[in-house]
This record gives sequence, structure tokens and C-alpha cells, in this order.
Amino acid sequence: MEFTVATGPLARAAARADRLLPPRAARAGGVTLTASAAGVGLSAVGEEATVWGEFAAVVHGDGVAGVGRRALASTLAGLDAPEVRVRLEGSRLAIRTGTARFAIPLLDAAALGPAPELPPVAGRVPADVLKAAVAAVAGAASRDGLPLFNGVRVRSDGDRLRLAATDRFRLATAVLPWHGSAVDVLVPAATLAEAARTLPGSEAIVHADADRFGLAWHGTGDNGGAVTPSLALPFPDAQLDRLLGVRPECTVDVEAALLRAAVERAMPFAGPVGAVSLEAADGVVVVRGTDDGAGDSREEVKAQVGGAAMTASYQGRYLLDALRAFGDDRVILQLQTGIQPTSVTAAEQTGAELRYLVVPLRKSP
Amino acid sequence: MEFTVATGPLARAAARADRLLPPRAARAGGVTLTASAAGVGLSAVGEEATVWGEFAAVVHGDGVAGVGRRALASTLAGLDAPEVRVRLEGSRLAIRTGTARFAIPLLDAAALGPAPELPPVAGRVPADVLKAAVAAVAGAASRDGLPLFNGVRVRSDGDRLRLAATDRFRLATAVLPWHGSAVDVLVPAATLAEAARTLPGSEAIVHADADRFGLAWHGTGDNGGAVTPSLALPFPDAQLDRLLGVRPECTVDVEAALLRAAVERAMPFAGPVGAVSLEAADGVVVVRGTDDGAGDSREEVKAQVGGAAMTASYQGRYLLDALRAFGDDRVILQLQTGIQPTSVTAAEQTGAELRYLVVPLRKSP
Repeated sequence: MEFTVATGPLARAAARADRLLPPRAARAGGVTLTASAAGVGLSAVGEEATVWGEFAAVVHGDGVAGVGRRALASTLAGLDAPEVRVRLEGSRLAIRTGTARFAIPLLDAAALGPAPELPPVAGRVPADVLKAAVAAVAGAASRDGLPLFNGVRVRSDGDRLRLAATDRFRLATAVLPWHGSAVDVLVPAATLAEAARTLPGSEAIVHADADRFGLAWHGTGDNGGAVTPSLALPFPDAQLDRLLGVRPECTVDVEAALLRAAVERAMPFAGPVGAVSLEAADGVVVVRGTDDGAGDSREEVKAQVGGAAMTASYQGRYLLDALRAFGDDRVILQLQTGIQPTSVTAAEQTGAELRYLVVPLRKSP
Repeated sequence: MEFTVATGPLARAAARADRLLPPRAARAGGVTLTASAAGVGLSAVGEEATVWGEFAAVVHGDGVAGVGRRALASTLAGLDAPEVRVRLEGSRLAIRTGTARFAIPLLDAAALGPAPELPPVAGRVPADVLKAAVAAVAGAASRDGLPLFNGVRVRSDGDRLRLAATDRFRLATAVLPWHGSAVDVLVPAATLAEAARTLPGSEAIVHADADRFGLAWHGTGDNGGAVTPSLALPFPDAQLDRLLGVRPECTVDVEAALLRAAVERAMPFAGPVGAVSLEAADGVVVVRGTDDGAGDSREEVKAQVGGAAMTASYQGRYLLDALRAFGDDRVILQLQTGIQPTSVTAAEQTGAELRYLVVPLRKSP
């Protein structure tokens, strides 16, 4: 096996494989490179994900080689040469630039498993819209706890594709326009977030079947993607729909960045619970962090307030996550009575329709 | 006590106090603010350091107040208002902007100790030269182990001020032009590094006596600085001078950034010890990482080589630290026989005269 290939795309694919697959799994420790008349392929297969890439290359000799994922990624990461020549040499894979040769020990390619079979293409969405949606929604999933809360629910409904995640204290959803086949999966949030974050190009290709979900792209010199198995758990879709049926008592129209900065300033005064309260009053939201030990803070942020004047307390960090998802946009906060969640949406929807629900803290007696 | 002051300098001084003094020490947990006709002062006193600041301010009422270091720093850090009004209100210190009020619980100012008395000014040096020198030298000190190796030796010799630090595996020295009184101290490296890193302005004022060393500045709207006690340990100056008397067998003139990048690329092949070898040959340095398990690497970097052809192995990370200190400059490597250290100096000295010695690894039998 011998080929010459652009360094950048191969390095990025190797880095992606290294990040998407955990180091612990022995089988997932390797990455397979193949060279043929069709070009060069990279694949890494693990329980958490399957990663692949296809690269335009000058192939001098066909073949297959397995090498360590970390070794390939770290070797390619540091190169500034625009292209590399890759060659099987005895028990090593040699990677050459004009002035350097790096030789990585071979793994048994057969043991790394066959090249992955992908689920079919279900549809396509603008990459930037998907990236923003996944970043916001996956952030609301839980890092630990029940697997159900580690997942992003991805489900199509006619011409809409909805992403949703919750850790029970907050819930984020994004709705994208969809012109594809039916999708109905629960995707591990961390893997999805990483796969979306590093997605190049302007269009994301969604692969899906009953058990798997993947994101891919077609570039000019390379294609690639990552597929992850769906979590086999029933997601409480009906409950989610109920929660999204918000009946606001009070509506606040405010700049997300201004409110976020004020909440950040209140955090040192929010005590061990991190409780920050919002009081919607006449023309302002009053942001308070109140913990007797930490002192107290009070800040007014200009806002348009409609409906009843209301005060609610939140875990400040959840409020910050919610506001961060909207960047510098104006947002609408809809406050409900009791411990019904507060809804945050963009005042003017662009891209994905994003909604963030944050459950307020119970009032102290 | 009540005053109006620019937010930036006060926030930076509070942040500096919070970083330079460890959170554990109870006495060091507080910071004292004083307001008088002379302006506003900040001081924080701890075993590791004394930090102070003086600020131009409109003083509406004199007084003294003690508050938590972390509380003051985190409150001021998030403010975007250009100035704040600070006022003693009952048991709290209130910090106001146009739209917000933050109130921090008071500490007993008397218990925080008296305002620090500083050692006298010993001399002045250009801030950028000192910053570069301290960053390079303090990096060679040990993070743990014997206290002697956690210090930076600062000692004047006529019109030169030498900074030196070693962890026994490498030694870094910087010599600055000096027109001041005698300095002869051993300064905790971590504190010195932090104090120098955050030094504003173009001139650093060196304070020193037999037991203390400090860096200060005079700004347009604020003055400030930090003083740290000298470590009471005899530094082996004579041994250091002997080590600096390099007798090179081989001299390599090479671009620091190119060699550094090549060493970085060799690191994945350097095995558990991280051993990287340099072979000085005809017109090139050959950089190798060789560990049978990790594969092998070989890269040529253009260089002018004088004297005998030589090969030496190093802990790659020490070599990287040494080269990093010289940025994009051309450097001269002087290799000595056996396990005598290799010296790295700038091909053309600018600012501080920097020298980095790296002890090579013993050759395997």
C-alpha cells in the first residue's frame, strides 16, 4: 500500500476518530486505512461510534493497514507539510514529508473489523443550522445519571426534524426544516455534540435507520462522517410535548447577552445552590443573587415585560446555559406559575427554532 | 468610606491579589481597602506574598474596609461599567454601577493585618525584558521537590542582574543590565512568575532587601506591586557558575521554531521516557524519537553545524521548554561531551541574555 494525500483532511479525520472513540476499548484502539483505485479510506469502528473518511489521493499501490488511532492522529496533527506519502513498510506504516519520516507500528487490520456499513441517507440540512442546534440541545443532556438523560431525541414529524434533550432540570429543543425520510432515534449526546462540532462544509448529510444515526459531509477533496447506535430506550415524547405547551403568566423580551452578563455577575452572590432570581417588573428584569453569607446583588436589565409581574428563582448555571444558546439575539422569556418551567425562545427565529425550558427552584417557605 | 474609582485597575489588582495568595490561608483570605485624601489603596497580606495597589479616585469619605479576596475579585471581574462607586453600608461593602448594586460582607479589617511595609526600591528594568526573562527562567524551576529547586535565584553583580533556576535536569539563566543596588535573594518561582506575568506598564520597579523581593509599577491612574519573602536557603552559586562555563564539542545554529516543531513531531515516537535525540550532522540536525513500541521518527532540520558531529538524547519536554523560551529567534546549541549539559542561547541577544542548559540522557549501554 502506498499513496500520496493532502495532510489536512486525513489529519482531521484521524483526530475525529480519536476523539469520538474512547481510548479504553481495545477494538476501538485502531483505525484502518485502505487504498484502492477509488482513493483512500479511513475507518474506525467502536461501540460508541463508527467514523469514516474518504480522500482524493494519488494511489501508488493498493492495500489495507491498521494502526493505532492515537498514534496516527498525533503524528498527523503536528505536520505542516501540505501533503504526505504513506507507505506500508514491513511491520510499520511510514508517513513521509519532504524532510521527515514517521513510522507507526501496524495493528492486525482484520481484528479491527470490516469497513463499516452505513445506514441510508435520510436527508440533508444546512451544517451551520445543525451545528447551532446540536450545540444548544446536547448541552441540556445530562453527563451522568440515567442513560435516557444522556441522549438527544432526534425525531422527524413530516417536514420538521426535532432534536430534544433534558436532564429533568432543563429541556432544550430545536426544530429544523426537514425534507427527508422518517427519523426516530435517541442519540448519545456527547458523541453527537462532538460529531456535529467538527462537521466541515455547508451541508450535513443525515444517515439514519431504526438503530443508528449518523452525520456526514461531502467535501471537495474528502467525504466523511460518524455514525452512532441509537440508545434502545423509550423516550417520553408525550410528556415532552406537554411540557412544550407553555401557558405564560408573564412575558419578558430582553437581549440575551445583557441578561446573561447580569446573571454571571449575580453568580458570586448566589450561594452554594447558585440561586439567581429574576423579577419581571415595569420595563426591567431585576436580577438578584441572594445568599446571606455571600452578600447580595441587585441589577436591572432593560426589558419589555408583558402580563403579570412575576419573580422566579433558578439555578444560575442553567439560566446561563439557556441564554448562551441564543448568543447576542433578543429572547422571549415566558414565565409560568409555580414550578412550571420558564421558556426561552429567540424573539426572531433564524435557522433552527430553538426553545430552552428551565425549571425554577421551589420557593423557600 | 465612600469613593468612585475606575473599574479596570481595581479589578486587576483584586484579581492579582486573589491569584498570588493561596485560598487556604485564613489571614490571606481578605483584602483591605482604604480611602483617604491620598486616594484609594488595596492591600492583601499573606505568607507567600504581599500585594498592594494605589488608585486615583474621587474620595467622598475616608475609611478602611476588609472584604473577602475572592468575593471582591469575582464581583469586579464581571463588570463592564467603566467606573464603580464603593461605599461602606452597615456590615457590607456596596459596589455600585449605574444599574447594579453588589454588597459583599465585611471582614474584620484589623485582623487582616496592617498595610504592608515595602522593602526599598533597588532598581528599575524594562518590563518586557523582565517578563520574558522571568517566564523563561521560572519555567525551569521545579514545581515540587526540594524548596531550593522551587526558587529563582536573583542576584546582582555590578551592572548585571542574573536570574537563575534549576530543577537539576535543566538550568535557565537570564542576565539583565542593572543600574541599582545589590540584590541577593531566592524567590519562590511560582509567585515570581505570576507577579511578572501580570505586570502592567513599560517599567518594572524592583524592590528588595535581605529577606524580600518585589516587583512594582507606576501607572497613570494606579500604582501597584507584589512582594514575596526570600527563601532562606543557600543557593549553590559556585556550582552554577561552573555549569555555565560551557566547553562545546559541537555547535548548532538553527531556527528555534523549526527545531521545536520537529521535536514536537518526534514526541509521539519518544516512548514512555519521552526521549528525543538530536544528531548534529552536515548542514542539518536530525531529530529522532525512537521507541520500538511507538514506532520511530526521523526528521531533518536545516542548521549550520560546527565542530565535531555529535548525537545526544534528551527528555523531549525539557528540550521543548528550552526552545520555547527563544520564540522565533535563531539559537545556538552547544553540545558538550558525556552528560555535560547542552547550552541553548540566542544567536543574536536582544533584551535579557537568556541561557538554557539541558542535561542529556545517559546513553543506554
